[in-house]
Amino acid sequence: MFEETARAKKYREDLLAFMDEHVYPAESVYEEQMAAADSPHTQPQILEDLKVEARKRGLWNLFHPHEEWGPGLTNLEYAPLAEIMGRSIHLAPEATNCNAPDTGNMEVFTLFGTEEHKEKYLRPLLDGKIASGFAMTEPAVASADATNIEMTMEKDGDEYVLNGRKWFTSNGCHPFIKVLIVMGKTDPNAETHRQQSMMVVPIDAPGVTVKRNLTVFGYEDREGHAEVLFENVRVPSKDVLKGEGEGFAISQARLGPGRIHHCMRAIGMAERALEFMCRRAESRVLFGTKLSEKANIQDWIAESRVEIDQARLLTLHAADMMDKVGNKEARTLISEIKVAAPKAALNVIDRAIQVHGGGGVTGDFPLAEMYAHARTLRIVDGPDEVHKMTIARKELKKYRS
Amino acid sequence: MFEETARAKKYREDLLAFMDEHVYPAESVYEEQMAAADSPHTQPQILEDLKVEARKRGLWNLFHPHEEWGPGLTNLEYAPLAEIMGRSIHLAPEATNCNAPDTGNMEVFTLFGTEEHKEKYLRPLLDGKIASGFAMTEPAVASADATNIEMTMEKDGDEYVLNGRKWFTSNGCHPFIKVLIVMGKTDPNAETHRQQSMMVVPIDAPGVTVKRNLTVFGYEDREGHAEVLFENVRVPSKDVLKGEGEGFAISQARLGPGRIHHCMRAIGMAERALEFMCRRAESRVLFGTKLSEKANIQDWIAESRVEIDQARLLTLHAADMMDKVGNKEARTLISEIKVAAPKAALNVIDRAIQVHGGGGVTGDFPLAEMYAHARTLRIVDGPDEVHKMTIARKELKKYRS
Amino acid sequence: MFEETARAKKYREDLLAFMDEHVYPAESVYEEQMAAADSPHTQPQILEDLKVEARKRGLWNLFHPHEEWGPGLTNLEYAPLAEIMGRSIHLAPEATNCNAPDTGNMEVFTLFGTEEHKEKYLRPLLDGKIASGFAMTEPAVASADATNIEMTMEKDGDEYVLNGRKWFTSNGCHPFIKVLIVMGKTDPNAETHRQQSMMVVPIDAPGVTVKRNLTVFGYEDREGHAEVLFENVRVPSKDVLKGEGEGFAISQARLGPGRIHHCMRAIGMAERALEFMCRRAESRVLFGTKLSEKANIQDWIAESRVEIDQARLLTLHAADMMDKVGNKEARTLISEIKVAAPKAALNVIDRAIQVHGGGGVTGDFPLAEMYAHARTLRIVDGPDEVHKMTIARKELKKYRS
Amino acid sequence: MFEETARAKKYREDLLAFMDEHVYPAESVYEEQMAAADSPHTQPQILEDLKVEARKRGLWNLFHPHEEWGPGLTNLEYAPLAEIMGRSIHLAPEATNCNAPDTGNMEVFTLFGTEEHKEKYLRPLLDGKIASGFAMTEPAVASADATNIEMTMEKDGDEYVLNGRKWFTSNGCHPFIKVLIVMGKTDPNAETHRQQSMMVVPIDAPGVTVKRNLTVFGYEDREGHAEVLFENVRVPSKDVLKGEGEGFAISQARLGPGRIHHCMRAIGMAERALEFMCRRAESRVLFGTKLSEKANIQDWIAESRVEIDQARLLTLHAADMMDKVGNKEARTLISEIKVAAPKAALNVIDRAIQVHGGGGVTGDFPLAEMYAHARTLRIVDGPDEVHKMTIARKELKKYRS
Repeated sequence: MFEETARAKKYREDLLAFMDEHVYPAESVYEEQMAAADSPHTQPQILEDLKVEARKRGLWNLFHPHEEWGPGLTNLEYAPLAEIMGRSIHLAPEATNCNAPDTGNMEVFTLFGTEEHKEKYLRPLLDGKIASGFAMTEPAVASADATNIEMTMEKDGDEYVLNGRKWFTSNGCHPFIKVLIVMGKTDPNAETHRQQSMMVVPIDAPGVTVKRNLTVFGYEDREGHAEVLFENVRVPSKDVLKGEGEGFAISQARLGPGRIHHCMRAIGMAERALEFMCRRAESRVLFGTKLSEKANIQDWIAESRVEIDQARLLTLHAADMMDKVGNKEARTLISEIKVAAPKAALNVIDRAIQVHGGGGVTGDFPLAEMYAHARTLRIVDGPDEVHKMTIARKELKKYRS
Repeated sequence: MFEETARAKKYREDLLAFMDEHVYPAESVYEEQMAAADSPHTQPQILEDLKVEARKRGLWNLFHPHEEWGPGLTNLEYAPLAEIMGRSIHLAPEATNCNAPDTGNMEVFTLFGTEEHKEKYLRPLLDGKIASGFAMTEPAVASADATNIEMTMEKDGDEYVLNGRKWFTSNGCHPFIKVLIVMGKTDPNAETHRQQSMMVVPIDAPGVTVKRNLTVFGYEDREGHAEVLFENVRVPSKDVLKGEGEGFAISQARLGPGRIHHCMRAIGMAERALEFMCRRAESRVLFGTKLSEKANIQDWIAESRVEIDQARLLTLHAADMMDKVGNKEARTLISEIKVAAPKAALNVIDRAIQVHGGGGVTGDFPLAEMYAHARTLRIVDGPDEVHKMTIARKELKKYRS
Repeated sequence: MFEETARAKKYREDLLAFMDEHVYPAESVYEEQMAAADSPHTQPQILEDLKVEARKRGLWNLFHPHEEWGPGLTNLEYAPLAEIMGRSIHLAPEATNCNAPDTGNMEVFTLFGTEEHKEKYLRPLLDGKIASGFAMTEPAVASADATNIEMTMEKDGDEYVLNGRKWFTSNGCHPFIKVLIVMGKTDPNAETHRQQSMMVVPIDAPGVTVKRNLTVFGYEDREGHAEVLFENVRVPSKDVLKGEGEGFAISQARLGPGRIHHCMRAIGMAERALEFMCRRAESRVLFGTKLSEKANIQDWIAESRVEIDQARLLTLHAADMMDKVGNKEARTLISEIKVAAPKAALNVIDRAIQVHGGGGVTGDFPLAEMYAHARTLRIVDGPDEVHKMTIARKELKKYRS
Repeated sequence: MFEETARAKKYREDLLAFMDEHVYPAESVYEEQMAAADSPHTQPQILEDLKVEARKRGLWNLFHPHEEWGPGLTNLEYAPLAEIMGRSIHLAPEATNCNAPDTGNMEVFTLFGTEEHKEKYLRPLLDGKIASGFAMTEPAVASADATNIEMTMEKDGDEYVLNGRKWFTSNGCHPFIKVLIVMGKTDPNAETHRQQSMMVVPIDAPGVTVKRNLTVFGYEDREGHAEVLFENVRVPSKDVLKGEGEGFAISQARLGPGRIHHCMRAIGMAERALEFMCRRAESRVLFGTKLSEKANIQDWIAESRVEIDQARLLTLHAADMMDKVGNKEARTLISEIKVAAPKAALNVIDRAIQVHGGGGVTGDFPLAEMYAHARTLRIVDGPDEVHKMTIARKELKKYRS
């Protein structure tokens, strides 16, 4: 359907080869190295090895849409690569330097960063030498409504003074973390979408404390979803991105491609889960019949295939429209995939768990962790209900005089 | 996403104009003429008027993929037109001579008919002068399994003698019905898919009796879903299509495009239902709030939009693949849409009914009838479960050594 | 679980015997007599015969909770009888004089009627000689919100003048219809629940016109769901039930037991549908296996059993609480069953339809009509969403200071 | 509905007071003590304190149906207590010595244990001094089919030699673990349900190795779900419970009440989750409206209330039937609750997670852990699909000649 460009095809084939030759075989090594580490927030050697290999193969920063800094693929070209990476979620995105939230941060630095930001943060990020976080969500309020944000950014001479508490700051516990992009309120009295600003804050700035990691279901993710406390953190004006009051606008620009990536990776996870489901169903016998020959299991496999295919087509369509009409025009479609893809993935993964019996909920298979990850996607970057509101309003508008 | 060809665009625009200028305004006239008729199986004048107008506008036989006989659109080009027709299911398909089962029958006559068949049946069908039926399903057996078919077609000299009972023969009560294509068993001992043959049987052949029409959720459809009895019906050998034992093969060829059409029309119905839902939600107030401002109704609208968009993309993808790799290769995709599209449509229509309150189940809105139609689609041309089996088997095959 | 009283047991056994010996065998006779009639709004002889037999067996007015007028069963005692009646929805309720809306009307006349009302309407209703309607719902507004009601009842001397349009007036086309209980607004300026009054209006009162019957899905129900026009209908003050402004209060009292009956009959329908599903699954073979041996069909049967059992227990519990704490206290529970029972029934019936293939949507089986009936239950007497609001508010109240 | 006996009422009130006065306040202390411990498999002091208090209050061994050893409550009397305990799943069951699998093991020792077993294991278990495990499920096979069990128990003189691998042995990592009841195969050639035997094996028997704990959705449960290796473990004949070949029979007896307990605790969890959902919805504002005032959140609350009430009634009904007709007769009902209760709980918990936004998936609220627990219930003690098969067969049997 969607015509694949020659370069997209080349990257896809190269990435598939990399997955087969390096990533999948590395999964058990990764598990061992992580199990042997003292902390969940460690950087296992295998990941660094994979990064070297990926870069050597030209599979590096594939996400970056600006040709100066990366291959300059369109969203539609990159999306299928994100899906493939999602099949090995712990390894492939980071191995290719395409992991969130570094991807979004790199794009923000590219578009709105100063030369200093580019030198100090963008280059090492593009080199996979450092990690970065994005501090927007707050524990005390429904953050999907940007006007709820409570972090204060008070002007004091040529500086801003930040006070507040953030959480779900991904990468917050990454051993390589160096910098945060922080969203807060510079002017609570401005109009709704001009109250917020985004600032660049080094992780070691005085007053910044990573309080703890949040578990997701019971998982301590390696990169961490940190709670970060900001107490009288002083940020020079030059580190305000794009300008005061531009926070909301940047976040809109930032979230569009990120949601495509999240959704495609979720679809990749779902494909992997379906593969697990099929293999398991082929290998287990219950009351004299292989599970794969039972009509209910067959129904689950078929429903999974249908749900995955539909979610993928919708996400590719959204990517294509972003390329053609821009993030803003494609906004409703992005809300659609944000609702559809995690839901499809959860359905598929849940069925795969059930087919695995007790093993499905344990760490012996990646399924329960996939579930935890996909379940979280229904909440972060805006919960389903907020996206549905966006979609409904656009739909209803057609019929208003 | 899918590039629209120039001719597809032209047909789409012309068809939309025809809908706005003639079809939608004709809906209430149609209701009146049908209500005034003595029988549900009547041909109201408005429909004949629309046929004249459609033909004048070049919106005629759009479905026909063979350039000699029609515009020769690809499946992907025709699919969006079928969706538009589905918005006014009683009028638009027949007005444009694109209604089932005539479409499938016309294609069968084109591909496998003799010169006599073409002269006697294909030409008048293409002219919208006669109607035709397809008699495959039987009341006594699960017909999705072709080996279950019980109608006998016994060779007797240069003739076959047909005995059996069919039902769900659409168009069976159409006032213009002239001919049936009938599936039966010529050789119960042949291999599974060589047992069946298809024959051309005039509706007035001795021994053919249209016993009755079947209601569908209480509706007496105009064209009818007839129960037809065959008692010692004698069919000359020349009226065996393609050859003895070719029945299954023809039905496979026949059903592919037909399923695309059914699914796209179902999506068109769902779009229309969503439009009804939105308009109603905008116009009704409950406990001081417009229904359209309630978060649960907004969720329904959003979920409907997402389900419709996903089903449409999947169906277009299947159409595209049929064009590119052929019916057989695209078979699993066709099973996917057969499961996905009616399900999406039913979900949307059911929500629309609920938003309409009591009115939703009555004849004052087309919703209940849409529901009946879409519900039937989950059964005819193979029930969901048979299609899921097809999908699952293909999926499992990947993991078998 | 719930202890069955001796009299409840006796009635249950007698009713089951009546069903087996008379009602089920009458179903096909009923179909024939209805098919032979000129109008769908006819009273077939078989129904009158069944009424005679039921009365002879003491299975008459079982619903009536006041001992003076009926057996005086509690809600918990009567509920299982309503379930049994629901198994043959066209025959059993009317044969035992337990059909809606006569049941509710009889109770209203018992509680709030004058001696004249009792003599003129209650007695013949109890004798099954006449039928009655309840005119509350209006086509133009969301009637679940009583303040939306638009029918005016203007005082004029010792009379009220009624103007308005009602629909879904069940029994409105019953050949025996004699009287309506009508809800309208006597004082639009009174407090919310004192604006409405209920009045007794003979069907032949000047200005009352039964405009038409509403189809439900495509069905023309025998008793009819009528649209009734009221043009300057004059009602003497003595025919205001309970007093001006008491309309809402009466409707609350009236609807409680009625909802129990509706839900139990829906459960009876679901049980019958499950029986159909099992029998069909036992009798059909697909690809060499009986449907009943396929794991997906088995799942459907099991899920149906679980849903039915849960819905029944909840409804019995609600009936028990109505008996123990009164309609008002049990109000939330009644909202719960109103949501739960039709939903369970629809799920079961829909599965049964699918197992029946094409036959499932036709009139050859009662399933499609059951579906239409159960689907309507999600709307009448308050749509699901209004009942959910009631439930949620009660729940949230626990946590408000 | 179900009449509550005086003693059941007394226990319920006492337990509720204990929950309010001791258990809920202990939850945060528990979290702290667990966080401070070196291992997840620790016994925090607060739990021992609660045990002392519970015993003092007579809230001890409430589950035990044999009056000699406990209060001798019926299943119907005990069930509501299990629900209350489920509200604080880490503390209440163990504080009252009513936690699985000790409860099942205690009942097995009571019924089938020797005097030695009673002295050595039953007494200290009843005193809460030791813990015990039940080793049935195996990693290599679908254990729901007892014939699949691979552990060998070979007779060698007056001993049996056990070889095999078990997992999901709950309590396997409990610091107090002393003994296992182990299911294996003594005679692979016996008839299907006579092949298995159960034996009593001290945890420190030579050849028994607790290999590791299995995580459940990332959680390291305190008691542990252990993988246990049996290598030439020698068990004297006197430690075969009930006799060779009785394993299946014991497990049937054992699992009945256990499933009631599991289901009621799941319902208690769901009630707690609903409470969290309501409180959160009351406290958060999105786009100017409290979440609790949004119609979609209200729908969720209402649907949760309905699902919980239905699941509870079904489980109480099953408990009642077990009391009245015995485990065997009530078997299908027990399969019904095993399907219904975890499903209801998962639906409710999932909605509660969504209402909590990001917090919902973290350890700051108990919801994600509840989800993990309830999800596991759909698999252990027989996956849903096996129970559905049981239910369907019973249902279909009614219609077989």
